[in-house]
Amino acid sequence: MAPHEKSGSGTVLIHRYLSGHIAGLWDGDVTDMTLSALDLARRIEDGSLTPAGAVALCAEAIASREADLGAFAALDVGKAHAQAERDAAALAALPLRGLPVGIKDIMDTSDFPTEYNSPVYRRHRPVADAAVVMMVRRTGGIVLGKTVTTEFAYMQPAHTRNPHNRDHAPGGSSSGSAAAVGAGMLPVALGTQTGGSTIRPAAFCGIAGFKPSYRIVPTVGVKCFSWSLDTVGLFAAGVRDVAFAAAAITGRDLRVDRTVPSVPRVALVRTHAWDQADPEMKGAIESTARLAAAAGATVTEFDRLPFLEDADGAHGTINRYEGYRALAFEYDHHREALGPAVRSLLDEAAETTADDYDAARRTAKRARRAFADFMAGADVILTPSAPGAAPRGFASTGLPAFNRMWTLLGAPCINVPGLQDAAGMPLGVQIIGRFGRDHAALDAAAFIERAVTRR
Amino acid sequence: MAPHEKSGSGTVLIHRYLSGHIAGLWDGDVTDMTLSALDLARRIEDGSLTPAGAVALCAEAIASREADLGAFAALDVGKAHAQAERDAAALAALPLRGLPVGIKDIMDTSDFPTEYNSPVYRRHRPVADAAVVMMVRRTGGIVLGKTVTTEFAYMQPAHTRNPHNRDHAPGGSSSGSAAAVGAGMLPVALGTQTGGSTIRPAAFCGIAGFKPSYRIVPTVGVKCFSWSLDTVGLFAAGVRDVAFAAAAITGRDLRVDRTVPSVPRVALVRTHAWDQADPEMKGAIESTARLAAAAGATVTEFDRLPFLEDADGAHGTINRYEGYRALAFEYDHHREALGPAVRSLLDEAAETTADDYDAARRTAKRARRAFADFMAGADVILTPSAPGAAPRGFASTGLPAFNRMWTLLGAPCINVPGLQDAAGMPLGVQIIGRFGRDHAALDAAAFIERAVTRR
Repeated sequence: MAPHEKSGSGTVLIHRYLSGHIAGLWDGDVTDMTLSALDLARRIEDGSLTPAGAVALCAEAIASREADLGAFAALDVGKAHAQAERDAAALAALPLRGLPVGIKDIMDTSDFPTEYNSPVYRRHRPVADAAVVMMVRRTGGIVLGKTVTTEFAYMQPAHTRNPHNRDHAPGGSSSGSAAAVGAGMLPVALGTQTGGSTIRPAAFCGIAGFKPSYRIVPTVGVKCFSWSLDTVGLFAAGVRDVAFAAAAITGRDLRVDRTVPSVPRVALVRTHAWDQADPEMKGAIESTARLAAAAGATVTEFDRLPFLEDADGAHGTINRYEGYRALAFEYDHHREALGPAVRSLLDEAAETTADDYDAARRTAKRARRAFADFMAGADVILTPSAPGAAPRGFASTGLPAFNRMWTLLGAPCINVPGLQDAAGMPLGVQIIGRFGRDHAALDAAAFIERAVTRR
Repeated sequence: MAPHEKSGSGTVLIHRYLSGHIAGLWDGDVTDMTLSALDLARRIEDGSLTPAGAVALCAEAIASREADLGAFAALDVGKAHAQAERDAAALAALPLRGLPVGIKDIMDTSDFPTEYNSPVYRRHRPVADAAVVMMVRRTGGIVLGKTVTTEFAYMQPAHTRNPHNRDHAPGGSSSGSAAAVGAGMLPVALGTQTGGSTIRPAAFCGIAGFKPSYRIVPTVGVKCFSWSLDTVGLFAAGVRDVAFAAAAITGRDLRVDRTVPSVPRVALVRTHAWDQADPEMKGAIESTARLAAAAGATVTEFDRLPFLEDADGAHGTINRYEGYRALAFEYDHHREALGPAVRSLLDEAAETTADDYDAARRTAKRARRAFADFMAGADVILTPSAPGAAPRGFASTGLPAFNRMWTLLGAPCINVPGLQDAAGMPLGVQIIGRFGRDHAALDAAAFIERAVTRR
C-alpha cells in the first residue's frame, strides 16, 4: 500500500445526525425526523413502549408525510396495529421486538400485493412470502406495508420523493424504503442492491443503509434481475440501528451498540469514479478521513485501483446477461409494457454472449482475489456513497458509479449518514469491509459515524 | 496421486445402449425405447422429419406408456402439435429444432399448472415462465408438459414408475423427466439436482443425465430448496444427446457428437460411500475402468478422499439451513400439508444455526480448493451414479450417497447409461469433470459411453 498525501478540504460539514443516541424518539424537526430502531426496541424491552405504540408512532408520521412522499406501494396500518396488540407479549420477546418493518415491493408477500412496479404484475398476490420476509416475521417484525421500488428494481425513477426536500429524488431502486425510514415513517425497511440500490438511496435520504456480504441473506422470493448480483439490504436511522436490525433478522452477531467501536485501519479509496463526485462530496470524504484520523484511525489513501475498474466493467456485462434471462418472460411477452430503462437495457442485453459473460465472471473472480489481497492492509475502505447529494428533479435515480464494483465484489457496504451539503441535503459516505466480515464493517461504520457526528 | 491395484469383477455387463448411433428412432423394444434428441434434430434439419412429426412420436409413446408410468404432472399434446405445425419453419431453424421438451414441475410455467407436487400449490399458475423454460422456448423447444417431481424436489417418493420395470422406483426428485425420457415419451427433459436428483434418476431409468457446473443455467423461477445447491439438470437418451440439448439451450460450446472424443485421464474414485454400493455396481465401475483403459484412457484409482467426506457433511448442513429459510412460508403456515420427508427435515433444520452454516460454507470452500488441486492430476472422475440399480418398490427415491458431494463442489456430473444388472435394470456410472469444464466432462463421458457400449 502506497499512501498518498491527504488533500485538504474547505467544505463545511454540518452535524445533524443524532439517532441512536438520543432519548427523544421523535422531535418533529426535519433535520432529525428518523425513528431509531434500537431505541424503540430498548423501550419495548424495558416496557416503556409496546409494539402497538411503535406502530402508532409510524402511523402518526405516515399520516403527516406519506401523502407528500409516496413511499408506500401498499400499506395496512390497521392490520399491523391489530397484530401488535394481539401478539404483544410474544413479539416483545423476539429479537425485533414487534417493530414495524417495510418490505420493498420487489419481495413476495402473501398478504400484500406484490407488483414490482410493473403493469405486468398489477394485482399480483404471491402464494408465499419471500424467505427474508419470513425471517422478519419469525424474528418478531410486523410488516406494515410494501415500499415503492423502481420497475423490477432497475433505474426508471418511481414517484417517491426525498423526505429532506420533496423536489429532490430519493434515489433508487429501494426508493420507498429509504424515504420511509428517512421520514420516520418506519424504523426498519428492507431493500435490495444489484448496482447501488441500497447504499445510494440511504445516502440521499440521510439514513444508514447496509448491504451485507453476498448471500448472507437469501433472495428466495425476491424478483430476480441478476442472480449473481442481487443482494438484500436493510435501512434504519443510524449505523447502530441497521446493525441491530440485521442482527435480529439474521440471528448473527452483527450488533455494534454494546461496545465502543474498535479503531479501524481505513483506506480512503477515491476510485476511477472520483471525477464524477461533486466538490461537496469530495470535501465530505476528505473531512471524514480527517475526523477518523483525529479519532485515532490510521488512514491511507489511494486513487485508482485497477481491480475496481475491472470489476466495474464486469458488473455491466453480468447484469445484462443475467437480466436478459431473468426477465425473459416479461421481455418476450410484455415488451411494450416495460418502462424505457428496462426495455432499452434488455434490447441491448440480447447481444451479450455466453463468452462475454464467462469472461466477465473470470474478471470478477480475479477482482475478488485482488480485493482480498488489498484488504490485508486495511480493515475498511472509505469512499463516496454517491457522486453527491440527491439530485434535484426526478429524471434519474442517481449514478451507481460508486456502488457497482462493491456489489460485484460481494463486500459488505454501509452508508454512514450524518453529513449535509450547503443546501441541507444529506451527503452519505460509504464504508466497505472484507467479504464475510460484516460485523467488522459495521463496527468501523459506527466508529466513522461517531467521529463525524461528534466533532 | 497414489494409484491402487485394480480389482477384478466377474459381473456380466450387457450391451444395451444404442441411442445416438442408430438409424431407427423407435423400435418398440423395451431394451431400446428412447428417442435420440440428436437424431430427431438431424432429421428435422435435413427435412426428413418435421417438428410436428417429433411431437407425434412422443404422443405415440405417451399413448402407450404414460398410463403405466405416470411421468407427467400436466400434458398438452394437442397444443404442442398445433405449435409445431404453426411455427414449423421458425422452430426448425432454431438450435432445438422444435423438439418436444418436458419441464420438471418444480419450474414455473405460465401456460401449465405448477404445483411442486405440494397441495399448498394445487392449481397454482405462475405469472411468468422460469428463466430456463424461456431459454428452452427461445432456442426452439416445444414444452409438451410438466413432469412429476417429488414434493419440493425433496425425497418423498412420487407416484412415477420406472420405465424398465414398473415395480421399481424411477429415482428422484426428477422422477417424471427421467421416466419420460427413459420411456421414449420425450427426447429431452429438464430436471434439477440439490443432492442427486438428476444423476440418480437418469441412472435408474437408463438414460444420460447432465448436471452442469453450478450456475451455468439459471434457477430463476425454479422453486428453491437450497440456493447454494439447487442446479438445473438435463435428461436425454445418450451422452451426445444430452450434450446437444445443453448446447442448444445454453448457447454454449457443449456438443460432443461432431468429433471423436479425446482420450481422458480417468480417476476411479470409490469414495467413502463405496461400502454402500452393491456388488453389481462395484463390478460395473471396475469393468468400466477396464474398458476405458482398453480404449486408451489412463486410469488411476483412489478409495477415500478426505475432502469428499468433508463435502458430504457440509452438504447436509447447508441443505438444512437453507431449506428451513427457503420453505419458511410453507413450513410455518402449512406444516400439516407437508409430506413426512420434507416435514421431518424441516423440523430438524430449525436447530441448524448461522454458525453451523458458516462453518459448513468454509468447509465447502476448502473442499472446492482441494477438489481443484486433485483435478490437476485427472480430466475426470469415474464413480457410481447410485449404489446400484433402481430399488424394487417405492419406499425411497434412492440414496444420494454418490451425488451430494459433487453437487456441493459445483462440478459437472454426467450419468453414462449403457449397462444393466443381471435382472436387466440399468446401472449408471458417473463422470465428474472440473468446475466450469463442462465440455471436457461431456466429451469424456462420451468416450466412456462408447467404450462401454461398443465392447
